[in-house]
Amino acid sequence: MEISALQKERAGYQPKLPKALQGAVKIKEGEPTKSVDNQDDIKKLFPNTYGMPLVEFVPTDKTESKAVNVGVILSGGQAPGGHNVISGLFDELKKLNPNNRLYGFLMGPGGLVDHNYIEITADFVQQYRNTGGFDMIGSGRTKLEQVEQFEKGLEIIRQLDINAIVIIGGDDSNTNACVLAEYYAAKKYGVQVIGCPKTIDGDLKNDQIETSFGFDTATKTYSELIGNIERDCNSARKYWHFIKLMGRSASHIALECALQTQPNICLVSEEIQAKDQTLNDIIEHIAGIIAHRAAQGNNYGVVLIPEGLIEFIPAVGRLIQELNDLLASHGADYKDLEPAAQREYILTHLSAGNRSTFETLPEGVAHQLSLDRDPHGNVQVSLIETEKLISEMVGAKLAQWKKEGKYNGKYSALHHFFGYEGRCAAPSNFDADYCYALGVSAVQLIANDKTGYMAIVKNTTASTDEWKAGGVPITMMMNMEKRNGEMKPVIRKALVELDGAPFKEFAARRDSWARETNYVYPGPIQYWGPADICDRTTKTLQLEQAK
Amino acid sequence: MEISALQKERAGYQPKLPKALQGAVKIKEGEPTKSVDNQDDIKKLFPNTYGMPLVEFVPTDKTESKAVNVGVILSGGQAPGGHNVISGLFDELKKLNPNNRLYGFLMGPGGLVDHNYIEITADFVQQYRNTGGFDMIGSGRTKLEQVEQFEKGLEIIRQLDINAIVIIGGDDSNTNACVLAEYYAAKKYGVQVIGCPKTIDGDLKNDQIETSFGFDTATKTYSELIGNIERDCNSARKYWHFIKLMGRSASHIALECALQTQPNICLVSEEIQAKDQTLNDIIEHIAGIIAHRAAQGNNYGVVLIPEGLIEFIPAVGRLIQELNDLLASHGADYKDLEPAAQREYILTHLSAGNRSTFETLPEGVAHQLSLDRDPHGNVQVSLIETEKLISEMVGAKLAQWKKEGKYNGKYSALHHFFGYEGRCAAPSNFDADYCYALGVSAVQLIANDKTGYMAIVKNTTASTDEWKAGGVPITMMMNMEKRNGEMKPVIRKALVELDGAPFKEFAARRDSWARETNYVYPGPIQYWGPADICDRTTKTLQLEQAK
Repeated sequence: MEISALQKERAGYQPKLPKALQGAVKIKEGEPTKSVDNQDDIKKLFPNTYGMPLVEFVPTDKTESKAVNVGVILSGGQAPGGHNVISGLFDELKKLNPNNRLYGFLMGPGGLVDHNYIEITADFVQQYRNTGGFDMIGSGRTKLEQVEQFEKGLEIIRQLDINAIVIIGGDDSNTNACVLAEYYAAKKYGVQVIGCPKTIDGDLKNDQIETSFGFDTATKTYSELIGNIERDCNSARKYWHFIKLMGRSASHIALECALQTQPNICLVSEEIQAKDQTLNDIIEHIAGIIAHRAAQGNNYGVVLIPEGLIEFIPAVGRLIQELNDLLASHGADYKDLEPAAQREYILTHLSAGNRSTFETLPEGVAHQLSLDRDPHGNVQVSLIETEKLISEMVGAKLAQWKKEGKYNGKYSALHHFFGYEGRCAAPSNFDADYCYALGVSAVQLIANDKTGYMAIVKNTTASTDEWKAGGVPITMMMNMEKRNGEMKPVIRKALVELDGAPFKEFAARRDSWARETNYVYPGPIQYWGPADICDRTTKTLQLEQAK
Repeated sequence: MEISALQKERAGYQPKLPKALQGAVKIKEGEPTKSVDNQDDIKKLFPNTYGMPLVEFVPTDKTESKAVNVGVILSGGQAPGGHNVISGLFDELKKLNPNNRLYGFLMGPGGLVDHNYIEITADFVQQYRNTGGFDMIGSGRTKLEQVEQFEKGLEIIRQLDINAIVIIGGDDSNTNACVLAEYYAAKKYGVQVIGCPKTIDGDLKNDQIETSFGFDTATKTYSELIGNIERDCNSARKYWHFIKLMGRSASHIALECALQTQPNICLVSEEIQAKDQTLNDIIEHIAGIIAHRAAQGNNYGVVLIPEGLIEFIPAVGRLIQELNDLLASHGADYKDLEPAAQREYILTHLSAGNRSTFETLPEGVAHQLSLDRDPHGNVQVSLIETEKLISEMVGAKLAQWKKEGKYNGKYSALHHFFGYEGRCAAPSNFDADYCYALGVSAVQLIANDKTGYMAIVKNTTASTDEWKAGGVPITMMMNMEKRNGEMKPVIRKALVELDGAPFKEFAARRDSWARETNYVYPGPIQYWGPADICDRTTKTLQLEQAK
């Protein structure tokens, strides 16, 4: 197997651990917790895993540890650092007791249900230390939520004498981890379930989780590319680049990249929703900046667009909500119709307001909105070419203004979509260390008989030595939300807060970025070299954690 | 002006110079040269700059140097390292004589004609050392070929007391540099013209030019992204990624990226042309590999597509050739027609064979081929979405095979186009050193009274110390080719050679890359760290220079 020079050298990197995790560890428990909202509902649904305390790990004298076997699952989209969580799990398990075993379930939660697994050995884990991707054991989007799946999983858990399952996933996967923990606890099966906060999208964060892993590496990779495009834009001075960025609903990725690269325009979905802006408002805003720059002779610029934008335009959002419910309840009869009949079906079933929104959308976009839900019942926003939709509508607006004598520039647009380019990048030093510490923490939660917890690492803007590690009860982060037409307990998704420090920093500076050309070129992630390059965290984290 | 941490640290990098350029320099001249083909024609067109010797720089004792003023022009598409050529020019000029001055003409060759310039000072150059982009003085695509332009340029040359012009550009721009050198020599104006080999495309190379600058950085940046996508592909195991790569006609970029990342498929335009393959041959080739992998349960993979592909499919190539000539001679009456009338116009004017090819192309592609020539009369291949054209046709072929029972997999395609992401990346150590040495060499050619030369640096797979520097007469690299319907003297473009070492290495290994999954993940360019990562050259250069 041929590997790159970077892979070879990087394989030798030993992730830095917080002091509290370097030696033997005991837990310090806090007060009982409650869910962020809908406490009665959540408590009723999770009688065995509700109200548990926060825990923090602190150093102790060396202690004996019984043998435990652990199964690990990667769930959902890839994020840089997943392999390091597994390395941390493996090393800590073996450190506690050389007889401990780690099993990897293959291709996501489905591997548990279908009994597809491998044992993770020292030689095997060595090939994946500090690498990107989830190819070590694969990932998948099977939703773990049926009792039959839990019971089927139990068979292989018993067969392999597994004590605990670690699920590495985003908000939905960790919600399901908690449902599984609750079920096994209720049944007194003695099987623990622990989650780890993974997602490049950055929307799995709250008072306990400072950042989800992968956000650091992915946003640095996208910012490298955006910076390169900005430099090209500023050299050729003849194109407007429209860059859509992955990130699903939340705009954290776009916002972080904007803070790193200072583009002329960055749309923030949450702001558009809060201000109740229409698609036309957005188009006029962008066209206005383009016209202003053109008047100064600058017929070029860079626009960042979060992939979730379309859902956050309130009229479109209401439409999508009704479509989600409609497809969840009538999907079966609808699915087999011809495209024209599908459109007709939707138009006759929609309420009047949403029908008129549906009719005014470009047909390709309307089609996308009425198809292809992911297994969680969500629109696959990454398939909608929002960057082209917006740039074409901006072009039409500018043509109109030109006729009216309000604009006299040249407008030539280029389009980019960055997502797959960063989800599997080799983890930055930050993500390499952070993920490894999460893996170690997960093992300590298991060794301390916890279930229904997520592993957490805090104080992450300090040096790694000073990081704090522990666990948070998953129920603490839950509330009730409508999914597929039903109210469900879910971990509350963290959207961009308009009174949060990152957005406020952006809002204070964006007007000058729009008028002037203040591009910053971050360059590629560096693993060796000056610490101010290699060890810096994201701007989002710096701003949020600045006290 | 805010700059990134990488920019700050990188500003302090002092490019390494070959020993021969570290101190005082004299030239060693070789035998008279002749053009690679059409010697009589080229000699007749370039009576004053034909047949000059190759020159090499060798160390000497310190010598006095008269004051010279130099003007520099960036021409055409951006390539990483352009700013370092200018840094090298500046430092060497000042070293030879502190009274020497360097002027930058703005936004390409048009700056010379329109008298837009700045003086490049020590403070100014400092901001751009080791940075990507051409934003220091801007670039442009004005074609310098008319006597009126040469005379107009002479006015500002006289006004600023400039002795020599350095043109940093690709094959066409260096051809024009030689035409300008010849004109000024014929008129005995005493103005020297020197070229520098720039292009990420890698197609400006020959026995004298080992590589054009920017190829190293751009291909490493694209390979980083391709590797990340491969890792994602190999983790999710459900998509075929079709990745188009910039590079105009030649497939050097795609081939180099394939050698670095080992994708399942990489199309090489030159091979398709040599084998006289049809579009259907290509589609069946790709579909065959997809079906083979599907039979093994692997419904995923990565396909690299050179952006020039479409021109190299012989039937399409013949069509484009006729269209080029047709538009060059009848462009004026054709330009103002409505799209439908344009199509009709083309169909009535094409020869029978080409007409039928035109009719069978998807309409959007046919439209692109009949529009938008660049200033050199070439199709703007980067605007054609070849990656989507191919993946859709592959999808149709697989659907047909499924009906015939020959294929039973799942096919889901994603598309990417990488070009602007790498053209302005901060130069790798290789490009930073190489470009700086080219700038120093250009000044030495000027100091030694040369004109019509390109600066060259050779032996580039050895350590920088051992590199050799000198100059090559531009006429030596010329032959006659048809452009815009007329025979013109041009630098022969270097296409991928099917009996060259890089292609042979690829051809020997691609079958196993197709069947197996042998992805290599190069990761981002590193500026600090182990030498095997930071100082490695491209695979193309290693293979071509291996003796």
